[in-house]
Amino acid sequence: MSTAPACLGHGRVTITPALRAAVDRLDHRSRHQAAYHFGWITAGGAPTSADAGKAVRPALALLSAEAVGAPPEVALPGAVAVELVHNFSLVHDDLMDGDEERRHRRTVWKLWGSSSAILTGDAMLALAQEVLLDTGLPTAAPAARLLARTTRHLIRGQVQDLAFEQRSHVTVEECVDMAAGKTGALLSASAAIGAVLAGAPEATVDALALYGDQVGLAFQLVDDVLGIWGDPAVTGKPVHSDLRSRKKSLPVSYALNQEGPLSDELAAWLAAPGGPGGAGKPGEPGELGEPGEAELRRVAGLIEGAGGRDWALAEAARRLALAEDALRGVELDAGARDELLALGRFVVDREV
Amino acid sequence: MSTAPACLGHGRVTITPALRAAVDRLDHRSRHQAAYHFGWITAGGAPTSADAGKAVRPALALLSAEAVGAPPEVALPGAVAVELVHNFSLVHDDLMDGDEERRHRRTVWKLWGSSSAILTGDAMLALAQEVLLDTGLPTAAPAARLLARTTRHLIRGQVQDLAFEQRSHVTVEECVDMAAGKTGALLSASAAIGAVLAGAPEATVDALALYGDQVGLAFQLVDDVLGIWGDPAVTGKPVHSDLRSRKKSLPVSYALNQEGPLSDELAAWLAAPGGPGGAGKPGEPGELGEPGEAELRRVAGLIEGAGGRDWALAEAARRLALAEDALRGVELDAGARDELLALGRFVVDREV
Repeated sequence: MSTAPACLGHGRVTITPALRAAVDRLDHRSRHQAAYHFGWITAGGAPTSADAGKAVRPALALLSAEAVGAPPEVALPGAVAVELVHNFSLVHDDLMDGDEERRHRRTVWKLWGSSSAILTGDAMLALAQEVLLDTGLPTAAPAARLLARTTRHLIRGQVQDLAFEQRSHVTVEECVDMAAGKTGALLSASAAIGAVLAGAPEATVDALALYGDQVGLAFQLVDDVLGIWGDPAVTGKPVHSDLRSRKKSLPVSYALNQEGPLSDELAAWLAAPGGPGGAGKPGEPGELGEPGEAELRRVAGLIEGAGGRDWALAEAARRLALAEDALRGVELDAGARDELLALGRFVVDREV
Repeated sequence: MSTAPACLGHGRVTITPALRAAVDRLDHRSRHQAAYHFGWITAGGAPTSADAGKAVRPALALLSAEAVGAPPEVALPGAVAVELVHNFSLVHDDLMDGDEERRHRRTVWKLWGSSSAILTGDAMLALAQEVLLDTGLPTAAPAARLLARTTRHLIRGQVQDLAFEQRSHVTVEECVDMAAGKTGALLSASAAIGAVLAGAPEATVDALALYGDQVGLAFQLVDDVLGIWGDPAVTGKPVHSDLRSRKKSLPVSYALNQEGPLSDELAAWLAAPGGPGGAGKPGEPGELGEPGEAELRRVAGLIEGAGGRDWALAEAARRLALAEDALRGVELDAGARDELLALGRFVVDREV
């Protein structure tokens, strides 16, 4: 993996005091659980500094103000707000997906139950808006509006993701639309919100939003390739992890929608893993037996043979180029633009 | 029960088209489930007009604009927003509380599962902010800020409510604070948001907010009395319903915190219903056997004997008087003030 751009570590350091001050406003239970989720305390409440993720969204928000010539502080409430919305969605998604661990720590619902995860997530979402609107800046209203609309798209993506699990077929277009909601929308808002807070012209804001949308889709395409063919030593996930959960990811949806025997075989496996006579019932992934290594290797081969891997990587490169074009079409601070370009390449250019 | 003030029916009629237009923006699943929850469609999607509640909050929002001399339309986005926040909390609370029915219809989680209820609630919360901020009014930002802060208090109230279930003792002050969050905060915001959108002076907004806070507490005090001593023919709930669930409501918390044998007996019953040798384990209400009618009558008598009923009714009357004082301390449109006073008396003055 390429080295993380300096803006990432810088973003985390810059926003943490403001993020902690915001979380301190919450009731004592939501505050405790949010502080645990962000890696500041252990489940018991002792100070710690666990991995809290790369903070890509806050880094984008800070850069987006710098890109339009404003000091990064202008974007600080926006950076805190997008990080709160991202983590609201993680806390709720972990519960919905039944994920017991995140970054090698137990998830909020696993430790404190589902009601706590619902309420702590709700509190983070409301807090994101409060942080923005408390600034009293005249640009807070359009920034808060962008964030509310983005949250709607983020939720739409999660709704689609859950719906796809119960369907035997999804089109590539539907799958891209889901990723645009679930991954693209908040990266787009993050890349634009600093410029919105700085009062930048609409065309500049739109270019930054388009950059974020396309980087988000490129990221998801690469992430989906890694979910099937990634090296466990690099990804930290089991080999073929997305196939184990039978996820209709982007390369899978591409392969499914091609003509030919490989696509038919893949569709048959997704509908009834283990082949004819298998115990699996379609639409009930939880009831199916865990497929073996050899079977997963065969299915990965079907997807690769039907062109799913090559398509996803080519599409990621195309999306990244569109993101870069978007930044070149408007006048931006050269240093911030270079950092945005480096950040885009970093999230896409992982070992595949 | 006294006749509902005209503003209630009027409020429902006024906001429904705008509320439906807002819900139409949601993804197809959240839209369907929200439309069902609001009583516009059956679970299968056929048009209907089921009971959607009294719409007290939208009525307050519309009156609050009229009270400061603005046309009620100014408050319409605020009325829609408070109704969305109220219903976000109902959809999530029904899931957390395991309630299978609301207004004689199955709840969203019961029909479509817990993930759907989480996402549909999330979508309503985000939509509330979007509706306000889409107006582009200069007063939308303070209104959205009020709504975000209110949502934080609303969530705090639900966190406390769930925490109290697991505790053997709560003070009256804690119980009032919980009700101020869970019931008072959104009624307060509803009574103020129209004035905020109309750009009214801070003192006027504060008076309306105080009126809503106090009406909310008075409402909750009466509601808690009805939950123990209410006539099932009037309340539509089983007799002693709040005792069956061993809820630490306001009259119970008052009685618990008095000195004497009645209070001790009540505390013992809450800790181990059925008396010494009973099968119940404290802190695990779900595991306890259902107490019989005679036992519930006895416990209601303990609370009444310790002064819980009289205190709650006197406190409700005191709160209502404070609400009315708040409205008399500022200059308001006389007709709208009279309607606010009538609405306050209506929500408090039920058959007790």
